[in-house]
Amino acid sequence: MTPEPSAAEPPSDRTPPAVAVVDAQFPGNVGTIARAMKNFGFEDLLLVDPPELDPDGEAYGFAGHAREDVLPNATEISFDRLVAEYHTIGCTAVTNEDDRSHARFPFSTPADLAERLPTVEAPTALVFGRERVGLTNEELARIDEICSIPASAEYPVLNLGQAATITLYELRSLALDDDETQLPDVERVRAPEPTVDRLYDQWADLLGEINHPEEKRDKTMRMLRRVFGRADLTEREANTLLGILRRATERPAENRGRE
Amino acid sequence: MTPEPSAAEPPSDRTPPAVAVVDAQFPGNVGTIARAMKNFGFEDLLLVDPPELDPDGEAYGFAGHAREDVLPNATEISFDRLVAEYHTIGCTAVTNEDDRSHARFPFSTPADLAERLPTVEAPTALVFGRERVGLTNEELARIDEICSIPASAEYPVLNLGQAATITLYELRSLALDDDETQLPDVERVRAPEPTVDRLYDQWADLLGEINHPEEKRDKTMRMLRRVFGRADLTEREANTLLGILRRATERPAENRGRE
Repeated sequence: MTPEPSAAEPPSDRTPPAVAVVDAQFPGNVGTIARAMKNFGFEDLLLVDPPELDPDGEAYGFAGHAREDVLPNATEISFDRLVAEYHTIGCTAVTNEDDRSHARFPFSTPADLAERLPTVEAPTALVFGRERVGLTNEELARIDEICSIPASAEYPVLNLGQAATITLYELRSLALDDDETQLPDVERVRAPEPTVDRLYDQWADLLGEINHPEEKRDKTMRMLRRVFGRADLTEREANTLLGILRRATERPAENRGRE
Repeated sequence: MTPEPSAAEPPSDRTPPAVAVVDAQFPGNVGTIARAMKNFGFEDLLLVDPPELDPDGEAYGFAGHAREDVLPNATEISFDRLVAEYHTIGCTAVTNEDDRSHARFPFSTPADLAERLPTVEAPTALVFGRERVGLTNEELARIDEICSIPASAEYPVLNLGQAATITLYELRSLALDDDETQLPDVERVRAPEPTVDRLYDQWADLLGEINHPEEKRDKTMRMLRRVFGRADLTEREANTLLGILRRATERPAENRGRE
């Protein structure tokens, strides 16, 4: 039997795509893109015909901490070299309607790319075009594939910095392992089932104690299960609730008279 | 039996969440958020303690077409009214590590919210805080739930406009139906299977014609299936390839001598 293609390697074993910006007019947009790169673990910024990036200007002003590495380490490159040395993915809001033209069709969405790119072993560059007109048809004709962000048909044209930010966010799994994000692992802290079960037992006891109508108890318990099931309680939340309910259930009879 | 909760309604039947911006300092960020709202179909912009939004200034400059509706229709609102009238979802890059503090824990990611929110029938507002410090712990304590964008642990703090852009992109299904985006429906144009099968038959004929070694043909055909299977050919692409291959297979013997 022919062996199946091997599974995708974890992202830590490969180089994340480079990010290329073609002919940007506003230094602030280059800074915004550099910041998004650092936010999502990308490092290689390629600039084709960039504007001047004054260390006291908007590029550095918008770059956040990327002013320390991504931005000063950016490489100026010609469009010819870019398309010769990289598998290029051109990002555009404007696709063709169908395959009568191949300039902007077919396309992938950033979410499609996030699924497919991990299996591609080649230097890859995400290419973003200039403000207003984006990448030209002549540029797109030399680019390997097209990526487009789904947006409102009424106004699908994103700002350059915003388009790059969304694309890098969607492709973050190519640059960051799950344990390299700032977010703690929520599965790890969800309350264990026995604790949650004790909570439901305590609710049932409380319903009994307050003489909730017998015929409604099953339905009410189902409702409570749905409420707390959706809430994904942490152990601490479950224990706090359990304590409150226990005290509500067991409070001395004399206090109840005040109701 | 208790009936199951009804399935989520399509987004066209409900109001998408409002977007609230608390105490933004830079008008440009308000404009960026307004533009992202219009790009992804959101309409209601709520401003708590906004900066002055000069029609000739950066807010309108960054808003793109949202300068015509989202931005001029924005509502100024107090934080008190915001938390009283809306189910509020506060966005922050900085979460707590675990449930010893409830100010910033537990949290949902924007992708989690996109799955869960369609079932919630209540006025909802996505709340974004001021630049640099975001929402304060005091503000978050009055907000119903927390949302955080997974980003690099090394530098998880996104620019205000970029954070809102990503959140609105992820939640676009609450504001736009699939057929309301600018992207054509790719399923509709993928080549029909009979066309693709004719393409493989033509490849097989060509392999025969060029005397590709018998013992390698099955393996080569599998490779070709993998290549074109991944490429999701459109009908026009498949037909063009089919024509090229047919001519390559059937070209007159005299031309072959020139190889």
